Amino acid sequence: MNLTTESSHVVIVGGGFGGLAAAQQLGNQPVDVTLIDKNNYHLFQPLLYQVATGGLSPEDIASPLRAILSSYDNIRILMDEVVDISPDVNVLLTRNRMIDYDYLILAAGSENHYFGNERWSEVAPGLKTVGDALGIRDKIFESFEEAEHSSDPTRQKACMNFVVVGGGPTGVEMSGALAELAYHTLQDDFRRVDPREAGIYLIEGEVRVLPGYPEKLSTDAHRALTKLGVKIFTNTLVNDVSSNLVSLRTREGKEKTIATNNVIWAAGNRSNPLGKNLSVSGSGISLDHTGRVLVNQDLSAGEHSNLFVVGDLAAVKGSSGEYLQGVAPVAMQEGKFAARSILRSIQGQSLLPFRYRDRGSMAVIGRNAAVADFGRFGLSGTVAWALWAVVHIMNLVEFGNRLVVMTQWAWDYLTRKKGARLIGRNREVKASPSFADASQLKHTA
Amino acid sequence: MNLTTESSHVVIVGGGFGGLAAAQQLGNQPVDVTLIDKNNYHLFQPLLYQVATGGLSPEDIASPLRAILSSYDNIRILMDEVVDISPDVNVLLTRNRMIDYDYLILAAGSENHYFGNERWSEVAPGLKTVGDALGIRDKIFESFEEAEHSSDPTRQKACMNFVVVGGGPTGVEMSGALAELAYHTLQDDFRRVDPREAGIYLIEGEVRVLPGYPEKLSTDAHRALTKLGVKIFTNTLVNDVSSNLVSLRTREGKEKTIATNNVIWAAGNRSNPLGKNLSVSGSGISLDHTGRVLVNQDLSAGEHSNLFVVGDLAAVKGSSGEYLQGVAPVAMQEGKFAARSILRSIQGQSLLPFRYRDRGSMAVIGRNAAVADFGRFGLSGTVAWALWAVVHIMNLVEFGNRLVVMTQWAWDYLTRKKGARLIGRNREVKASPSFADASQLKHTA
Repeated sequence: MNLTTESSHVVIVGGGFGGLAAAQQLGNQPVDVTLIDKNNYHLFQPLLYQVATGGLSPEDIASPLRAILSSYDNIRILMDEVVDISPDVNVLLTRNRMIDYDYLILAAGSENHYFGNERWSEVAPGLKTVGDALGIRDKIFESFEEAEHSSDPTRQKACMNFVVVGGGPTGVEMSGALAELAYHTLQDDFRRVDPREAGIYLIEGEVRVLPGYPEKLSTDAHRALTKLGVKIFTNTLVNDVSSNLVSLRTREGKEKTIATNNVIWAAGNRSNPLGKNLSVSGSGISLDHTGRVLVNQDLSAGEHSNLFVVGDLAAVKGSSGEYLQGVAPVAMQEGKFAARSILRSIQGQSLLPFRYRDRGSMAVIGRNAAVADFGRFGLSGTVAWALWAVVHIMNLVEFGNRLVVMTQWAWDYLTRKKGARLIGRNREVKASPSFADASQLKHTA
Repeated sequence: MNLTTESSHVVIVGGGFGGLAAAQQLGNQPVDVTLIDKNNYHLFQPLLYQVATGGLSPEDIASPLRAILSSYDNIRILMDEVVDISPDVNVLLTRNRMIDYDYLILAAGSENHYFGNERWSEVAPGLKTVGDALGIRDKIFESFEEAEHSSDPTRQKACMNFVVVGGGPTGVEMSGALAELAYHTLQDDFRRVDPREAGIYLIEGEVRVLPGYPEKLSTDAHRALTKLGVKIFTNTLVNDVSSNLVSLRTREGKEKTIATNNVIWAAGNRSNPLGKNLSVSGSGISLDHTGRVLVNQDLSAGEHSNLFVVGDLAAVKGSSGEYLQGVAPVAMQEGKFAARSILRSIQGQSLLPFRYRDRGSMAVIGRNAAVADFGRFGLSGTVAWALWAVVHIMNLVEFGNRLVVMTQWAWDYLTRKKGARLIGRNREVKASPSFADASQLKHTA
C-alpha cells in the first residue's frame, strides 16, 4: 500500500506475455504501477488449442493476475478496457475512467485478421481468447452430436469435416489435435457415425506448412501431419467461407469446395486497434500493413520517449533485419526491456537499443511429434516433442498450473482420453414444443 | 451397433447419479438403451461449490457421458431435453423428436426452490448447474474487483458481504469455502480493500445448521464455521432479496438487513417439472408438496409398471418411515435398482420392493474440518475431513478426473491458492466511450 505521490506512475496496458513481464520487472521498484487488462487473468495462449479440442480446461492455462503479482505492493491491477490514448497529454481512457500516466507500456496484443472478409469471423472463429476456444470446442462436439443423430447424409458429412485455415504453428497444432481427437479419443463414442471417417483439412497459401521454419522442418511436419490423417492443401487460398461450405482456389486457379460445419481460422493476426488510435492522433507514429506500431530502436513510439510498445502490437526488427514474429518469447523480452528502460530513464540514464535473443521456436504436431528450430540446427520427432512439453510446462506462470497440466498430459498420454469436452456452458434455451405441434418432429422408436 | 429391433427399448431421462447408475447397470445387457440428457456430460454436483469459489474448473468435475459409456454398444446417447411424457401410450417428447419406449427410467433431478419468490432467482442464484456455478464465480470475483476500485463506501461494503441462504450441507460447504477464499486465498491480492474484512453470513430457518444431522454434529459444524469467520444466523428467515440488500426476520419477529451484492441460494430444491407433466395426464400419479413423484415400493409410478422414477424426482420412504433425501447415494441405488427391475421384468420375474442401504452422510466445512454421520456414530474434525476427501475423490467417475482433482487439492492444501478464478468466459462487450464524453468518468492519476 506504499503508493506514494512522488513516484512516477507507470501504466501497463495488457496482461499478456509482454505486459506481465514488464509488471514483474517493475515489482517492488520505486514506481507506482497500474496494470490494466480486460480480463482478471493472464492467459497462456500457446496452449489455447488444447482447450479448443477438449484436452485442457481454460482454468488450467489461465492464472489470476492478482495472484501472480500479489507480492508486489506497488502494483495495482485494474480490470477494464482501454479504448483511447492521448499521448500528447499522457492520459488514457478506459470504459470507466480516465487515467494519467508518466510512462506507458502498451502491450495490447493482436486479434484475428480476416483480410477484409470480417464477416467470416462469424463462421470461422480464430483462437485468441478463452471465449474463442470454448466456442470452437462447443462447435466441434456439437457437430459430432448432430452427425450422430442426423438423417441427412450431406449434413452428416459437413458435421464431420473440419477445415483449419492457415498452416503456421497454430494451424499445425490445431489440425494435429483434431486428428488425435477424431481418430483416437472419440473412436468408440458414437453408434451411428464413425469419427475415424472425419475429414481434417489444413489449408496453407504458401508452398509449404510452417513457412517461417527451415524447409527440412516443414517437410517433417508435413509428413507427421499426413501420418496422423490430416489432408494438407498448400498453395491454396480461401475464396469464401459460409456456415456449411469452404471454397478454395489453388495458386494455379483450380477451385475446390469442402462441405463443412467447422472452419477454424489460423491464417493471420492484426494488431489491436489501439495502435491506430495512436497513429491518428497526429503524433508522428506510423503503422505497418497489419497495424503494428513501427517503434524506435528503444521500443518507444514516435517522439514519445515515455511511451513504449511491446509484443504483438510492436513492429520490431531482429538482427537479420526481418520483423520479429508475434510470439511469447519476443513479447516477454520486449516487456522486460521496456520496464528496465523506464527505470533507467527515471534514474537519468540514457535509453539503450533493444536486441532480441532468439532461443528458437517450436510447434507441436501430436503425440511424439513436434518440430523445433534453433537457427543453427533443427529437431523433429519425439525429442522435439518432449522438449516442447518441458518448455511449455516450465513457462506456465504458476506452479499449481504446472502440476495440474502435467498430471492431465500424463494421463492423456497414457489413455488418449480428453475429458474437457463439456458443451455449452451458457447455451440458450429454445421454446418448448408440445405434443400438439409434434407432427413436425422426427419419430424415433 | 447391435441395436436389434427385437430387444426392448429402455429410455433413461437424465445423466445424473441416478440415470448414469441405471445406464451402467443396463450396459451390454439384452436391451436397447437411449440415455437422454440436456448436457453431454455427467456432473459431480457435490463439488460444484468448489467451482463457484475458484478451487476447481467445471471440466474437473464433469465427465463426457459418451466417454463413460463408450464400452456399451447397446447404449445410445441423445443430447436433448425431454419436455413431455405420455405414459399411457409410452411415448415422450423432446425438443427435437418423439421417442417410443418400452420402459422408462425418469431421473430428471431437481431445481432450485424459491418458495413462491421466483424473482429472487435473478439476484440469488442457486448451485445446480455448471452455468450456476460459473455465474456465482463471476459475481464473487467481480464484486472484489468493484470493491477495490469503488469510491462509494456503502457500495464497497455491499460488494464484500456474502450471504448464503440455507444451512444444509450445500450452504455449510459454500460458506466455509467463501471464508477460506476471502480470509486466506485473497488476503494479499488487493491494495485498497482488505478481503479479510469481508462479511460471510449463513442464514438458516431452523434452530441449528445441518438440521438433518445429529445435534452433536450440528454443534461441531457451527463451531468450526464460526472459527473460520462465518457469521451464522439460525432461526432466521428471508423476507426479501434485492440486488444490493437482503432483509431477514428472526422467528421472534426481529428484523435485520444486510447490504450485499452477493446472495447465494442453498435453501431448497423442487423437482423437475416433468413430474407435474406426469401427474396431470390423469394417470393416477401424485406428487408431494415439493413436486416429487410418490412412487410405489418398486419405484414404479401409478399404474405404470414400465415407468420408474429415481433420484431427486422420486419421493421414496426409507426404513425409518421418513422420505429419503435428495443425495447422490440414494439416486445411485435407486437407478441401479430400477435397471435391475427392468431386466427382471423382461425375464418374467416379479418386481421387488426397493430398500435403501444407508452408508452415512457427510458435509465438509473447510480445511481439516468436516462432519460425518453414520447413524450409529458420528465423526467431526480432521478425520471426517480426510474421509470426505477420499470418498469424493473415489466417487468421481473417471480416473483422469480423480488424478487432476487430487493434484489440485494437494496443491491448494499446501498453498491455499485457488487458481480457477477467471471472470466472464462469455462476457458481453459494452459500447465504447470516447474522450468526447469522458466528462462523466472518474479521473485517476
